[in-house]
Amino acid sequence: MKHLTAMNKLSLEEIHELIKEAKTLKYNGSQHILEGKFAANLFFEPSTRTRFSFEVAERKLGMNVLNLDDVSSSVQKGESLYDTVRTLESIGADVCIIRHSQDDYYNELVGHVGIPVINAGDGCGQHPTQSLLDLMTIHEEFGKFEGLTISIYGDIKHSRVARSNAEVLSRLGAKILFAGPDEWRDQDNQYGTYVSTDEAAAISDVVMLLRIQHERHQEKMTADDYLQTYGLSIERAKQMKKDAIIMHPAPINRDVEIDSSLVESPQSRIFKQMENGVYMRMAILKRALEVSNTIKKGDGLYVLSH
Amino acid sequence: MKHLTAMNKLSLEEIHELIKEAKTLKYNGSQHILEGKFAANLFFEPSTRTRFSFEVAERKLGMNVLNLDDVSSSVQKGESLYDTVRTLESIGADVCIIRHSQDDYYNELVGHVGIPVINAGDGCGQHPTQSLLDLMTIHEEFGKFEGLTISIYGDIKHSRVARSNAEVLSRLGAKILFAGPDEWRDQDNQYGTYVSTDEAAAISDVVMLLRIQHERHQEKMTADDYLQTYGLSIERAKQMKKDAIIMHPAPINRDVEIDSSLVESPQSRIFKQMENGVYMRMAILKRALEVSNTIKKGDGLYVLSH
Amino acid sequence: MKHLTAMNKLSLEEIHELIKEAKTLKYNGSQHILEGKFAANLFFEPSTRTRFSFEVAERKLGMNVLNLDDVSSSVQKGESLYDTVRTLESIGADVCIIRHSQDDYYNELVGHVGIPVINAGDGCGQHPTQSLLDLMTIHEEFGKFEGLTISIYGDIKHSRVARSNAEVLSRLGAKILFAGPDEWRDQDNQYGTYVSTDEAAAISDVVMLLRIQHERHQEKMTADDYLQTYGLSIERAKQMKKDAIIMHPAPINRDVEIDSSLVESPQSRIFKQMENGVYMRMAILKRALEVSNTIKKGDGLYVLSH
Repeated sequence: MKHLTAMNKLSLEEIHELIKEAKTLKYNGSQHILEGKFAANLFFEPSTRTRFSFEVAERKLGMNVLNLDDVSSSVQKGESLYDTVRTLESIGADVCIIRHSQDDYYNELVGHVGIPVINAGDGCGQHPTQSLLDLMTIHEEFGKFEGLTISIYGDIKHSRVARSNAEVLSRLGAKILFAGPDEWRDQDNQYGTYVSTDEAAAISDVVMLLRIQHERHQEKMTADDYLQTYGLSIERAKQMKKDAIIMHPAPINRDVEIDSSLVESPQSRIFKQMENGVYMRMAILKRALEVSNTIKKGDGLYVLSH
Repeated sequence: MKHLTAMNKLSLEEIHELIKEAKTLKYNGSQHILEGKFAANLFFEPSTRTRFSFEVAERKLGMNVLNLDDVSSSVQKGESLYDTVRTLESIGADVCIIRHSQDDYYNELVGHVGIPVINAGDGCGQHPTQSLLDLMTIHEEFGKFEGLTISIYGDIKHSRVARSNAEVLSRLGAKILFAGPDEWRDQDNQYGTYVSTDEAAAISDVVMLLRIQHERHQEKMTADDYLQTYGLSIERAKQMKKDAIIMHPAPINRDVEIDSSLVESPQSRIFKQMENGVYMRMAILKRALEVSNTIKKGDGLYVLSH
Repeated sequence: MKHLTAMNKLSLEEIHELIKEAKTLKYNGSQHILEGKFAANLFFEPSTRTRFSFEVAERKLGMNVLNLDDVSSSVQKGESLYDTVRTLESIGADVCIIRHSQDDYYNELVGHVGIPVINAGDGCGQHPTQSLLDLMTIHEEFGKFEGLTISIYGDIKHSRVARSNAEVLSRLGAKILFAGPDEWRDQDNQYGTYVSTDEAAAISDVVMLLRIQHERHQEKMTADDYLQTYGLSIERAKQMKKDAIIMHPAPINRDVEIDSSLVESPQSRIFKQMENGVYMRMAILKRALEVSNTIKKGDGLYVLSH
């Protein structure tokens, strides 16, 4: 049984294996290898993209899907997350995918519940499946991480993506640059160097934009001012290297983080990231449940897992 | 790839083909002909009936179903409808079924996204799948449209059904009558003649009732006053031709539009309409995705579509 | 077609058959015996546990699942429950599972709609599938009901579980004790004898705890006071017979009804109840739909039901 909680818990070897597996699933198909297994998607915060990406991944693997949204949940009645997950385990869930507003929520689960937990985003903490699909997309493009210059634009301080990605990309040998408003610098994130938005555009192999969280910040400038000063404007995109690519975790604020005309430009990999997300999540589910079976056998149960 | 946006975009030939296909699916079964395909149901307005009818249609065809409700949607975060649909396309949706409060919402999608869009109702505009299931029900009953007299009762002005049905039934050769309160007459709908409720009942082959939208109108009369004056009361039903039928798109306000005892009377086809809706939606999905495959092949991809 | 509405409508023979069937499904597997059938889950009140237990049961039987939550329902528009169920029947539902806040809601359905109704909880009335999974859990433990002493702790007055279980367990030959605050005594429930919490713990084979409904009651005492006075504290659990078991319908208020450390103790069957719930609900669905087929055949349709 292998949980997926945070990028810094994955070894470089495990990361490369997941990328390889996701590519295999993308190009060779999946053949319902987890037919009849049950996945429970527990989304305590709404997220169209992540939830549907997991749901498609689960169904392509032949799994049964249980969707648990906050509103329909007993958690309203004060039940602990541990009891909710143990309940789902008792009624037959084989794996739990969880998005929760609380940082490190998974610490009350890992080592206590009997099914693997896959973190689909925790508070301001991590969003490892997003990181892994970003890594897959970069690797598909360049075939490596070492020596790449990757700039992350925007609200470094409050971004799950910035946190996860800067750490793991540094570890994989890439050079990280940060660009954006001064008040969004993150003193705790030591993996990148702050440069100007123009410089970042000119020297990067990957321009990775973050979403502006309107709900988290008071805006002091207009959308167009933001785009021209800190976003990927048309002018700034022209300074990019010829083979450099544009990434964004989405949902996009068009004409804020990025000029609308660049979203589907030849250098953009934004919708390809979403496509890759499905295959990476399939690889993660396969890893979670296949290892689970092996452990069961190791416990002396010499029967075929159903 | 064939979208379904508005009734006036369908030729008479296409309408007859859809009715024929729906009848074939109803009487011969479906055999999971779209096995493994993904349908995304995007309902920005709630609708039990239409959504579940589509969901049953999709599952009878063997499809995987993604249900996207407003509350769980990134659209809340200000994402455009185009980006939402492109996202669903990227993660693997093969067709999008959309209900939206905005008239003609589909204009920003058709010609831009790569998957067919099926309109499940737009604002005060169209509701083509409802129209088509109505046509199927009428055709099943009379074997033709030409020469039939069809009266539509109620709020002609604000009804999607009145708009779609009056246009297409006129085109198919039926004579349309409108009946109801003066303030609900629709100056823009030139397909029917206004007559009294009594006259409409006496001379029609089909009495088609519309739902009173309590949420849209201030009521100036009691439910029973409305029923006696503008609805299908027991007295008025007695004046109907022996072979005439009663239709209603539902949900029904019993004892407002129609006397409760008539809802399941021998002349009523109300629940049959719902039953037919599943088969008509199956025919629409089949048309959307089969033609899609053909186009792909025409583009030079001589591989079997998965 | 066999509805399941209230425990007092089931004969002892039927109860024993359901327990036997549920055990067979638990140990022999299910093999998708209801493949292609449609189950509609109508939950007008939220309930994670019951809804997901039914959903897993349905999918293990190979059924298609339609989930209807209050928020997405036309019922908001004033449609009657009868019309909602008839609609679902018309679009292809083979069975309806309903939780509703109104006592005996099923009386407007049984005998009128054409598909079986399974009561997943009605108001302060019954919760028969919970009762049946409790019976299965007790029978798995003791192999019988006769001669057992079973104490029910807590809010006897407002509990669906207390009502259903006291009646049926008495009928099956068990002796029922009630324990809890005086203001929660139920004058209408004549199946049990009120004793002190300590006495109930000491002499029972089954200690069955009820959930404290914070939303229904004003609390006059702290959680710990409640636990020590009326709940299953560590001290009180020590007085239990060696082979006695602890049950709770969940969700649990830890350290209110029961000391948190006892929830997964060797004597607790709480998570086993949840596990058994899936198999009992499979047995109930199988009974509802298999009998349905038999009736159809009796009507002269000598074809194999699909």
